[in-house]
Amino acid sequence: MNKPLILVCNDDGITAPGIRALIEVAEQFGEVIVVAPDKPQSAMGHAITINATLRVHESIAENGRREYACSGTPVDCVKLAVNKLLNGRKPDLLVSGVNHGSNASINVIYSGTMSAAVEGALEGIPSIGFSLLNFSIDADFSGSKIYAAKLIEQALQKPMPEGVCLNVNFPNVEPELIKGIKICRQAKANWDEQFDERKDPSGRTYYWLTGNFRNFDTGTDTDIWALENNFVSVVPVQFDFTAHKSLDYFNSWV
Amino acid sequence: MNKPLILVCNDDGITAPGIRALIEVAEQFGEVIVVAPDKPQSAMGHAITINATLRVHESIAENGRREYACSGTPVDCVKLAVNKLLNGRKPDLLVSGVNHGSNASINVIYSGTMSAAVEGALEGIPSIGFSLLNFSIDADFSGSKIYAAKLIEQALQKPMPEGVCLNVNFPNVEPELIKGIKICRQAKANWDEQFDERKDPSGRTYYWLTGNFRNFDTGTDTDIWALENNFVSVVPVQFDFTAHKSLDYFNSWV
Repeated sequence: MNKPLILVCNDDGITAPGIRALIEVAEQFGEVIVVAPDKPQSAMGHAITINATLRVHESIAENGRREYACSGTPVDCVKLAVNKLLNGRKPDLLVSGVNHGSNASINVIYSGTMSAAVEGALEGIPSIGFSLLNFSIDADFSGSKIYAAKLIEQALQKPMPEGVCLNVNFPNVEPELIKGIKICRQAKANWDEQFDERKDPSGRTYYWLTGNFRNFDTGTDTDIWALENNFVSVVPVQFDFTAHKSLDYFNSWV
Repeated sequence: MNKPLILVCNDDGITAPGIRALIEVAEQFGEVIVVAPDKPQSAMGHAITINATLRVHESIAENGRREYACSGTPVDCVKLAVNKLLNGRKPDLLVSGVNHGSNASINVIYSGTMSAAVEGALEGIPSIGFSLLNFSIDADFSGSKIYAAKLIEQALQKPMPEGVCLNVNFPNVEPELIKGIKICRQAKANWDEQFDERKDPSGRTYYWLTGNFRNFDTGTDTDIWALENNFVSVVPVQFDFTAHKSLDYFNSWV
């Protein structure tokens, strides 16, 4: 029997520790092919490259695993993999990450990691995005690896509903402190942006975007609650953005 | 009484004919401030600029209208406007576009125009994204202007549900052929990508992303159906991406 084919991508770039951790887990379950950005592409959302060319550099790891570093965004990587680099083979699973930093709540909308997973779902591939709530290059992925393995095992055995992928976030704690996995909804939150205004050496103004996360949601069924209570949060994410509940209301406008 | 404050942005850039058409309409209803990318930023999705600096260039139109050309993405423009450039004034309405090309169906996920509108909704501003199904710089916006005015008028009078903005697409036909406005759901569709593979002068491979739109949806309540039948399509769009219907199913995984 053929081993399952697992496509691995991310948004922090092909050299990030998080993708190395995820490759290690994925190789326990199948043949892994890596297609990831050749540089950090955080916060690229669902951007694609239509006004510039794309480059791909192939390399082969010691165990024979093929890796492709792509000049584009995370979504470009998925499109290139599926339509060009995999030579017509359809992955049995796409895993994206492990992202450095939170993709919980509204971060899902800015996240390149999750956009790669959503693009996988759009292509009909069961897809999961993983993130660890730790930005450091020295982040400890040992807990993430244990729970990523559990979820990958499930995803290879059980069907993924059509039009849905998973947004998985790991709390930044020792593995033994993780209480388990919680299926959640996306917490209602946004970012209170701050622009750090500076002067360049010529005296002209420029800005750095920064900000503070604001959680408005007191529910105990949210991803933020789960993470604050040391659970792994799993939010099923869909790409039908229609606000079905408000269709009737807007009929009163026209 | 103060005139309403209307923030205008887009993704085709501050010089695009589409944003000029939208400014003209918006000025019938209120004071307009323009904050838009200084170059085309199509297909940027919900990307934000966190690894580079942002620049803003201000100009003042003949009628005194303030315009800001920003080096960032459409979402950066909205964040900069709300948190810096408007000096604490909150817009009564955000309008984005008129985009050149379709943002119907799954295009909503790639669209910088719609991401600006979604970001407005995230900031609690009633927000509408407009697109015309014509990529040409010579596109005729006369029909778009009539129906954009109708919707802007409604949006200034009636409440926008929390967490919802509108994705409006105009069919590319003469104004008198437009049959009216239809409230729709997002059609199920995706893109069949094609990568145009070429060699550079040094013989190295590069790619251009292209593709064909595939509509899988035969419903008559979709935006694609409305546009094919010469209606203006209006889809209420939400940024809660949780697939609420599948929460129960995934509880069987853990």
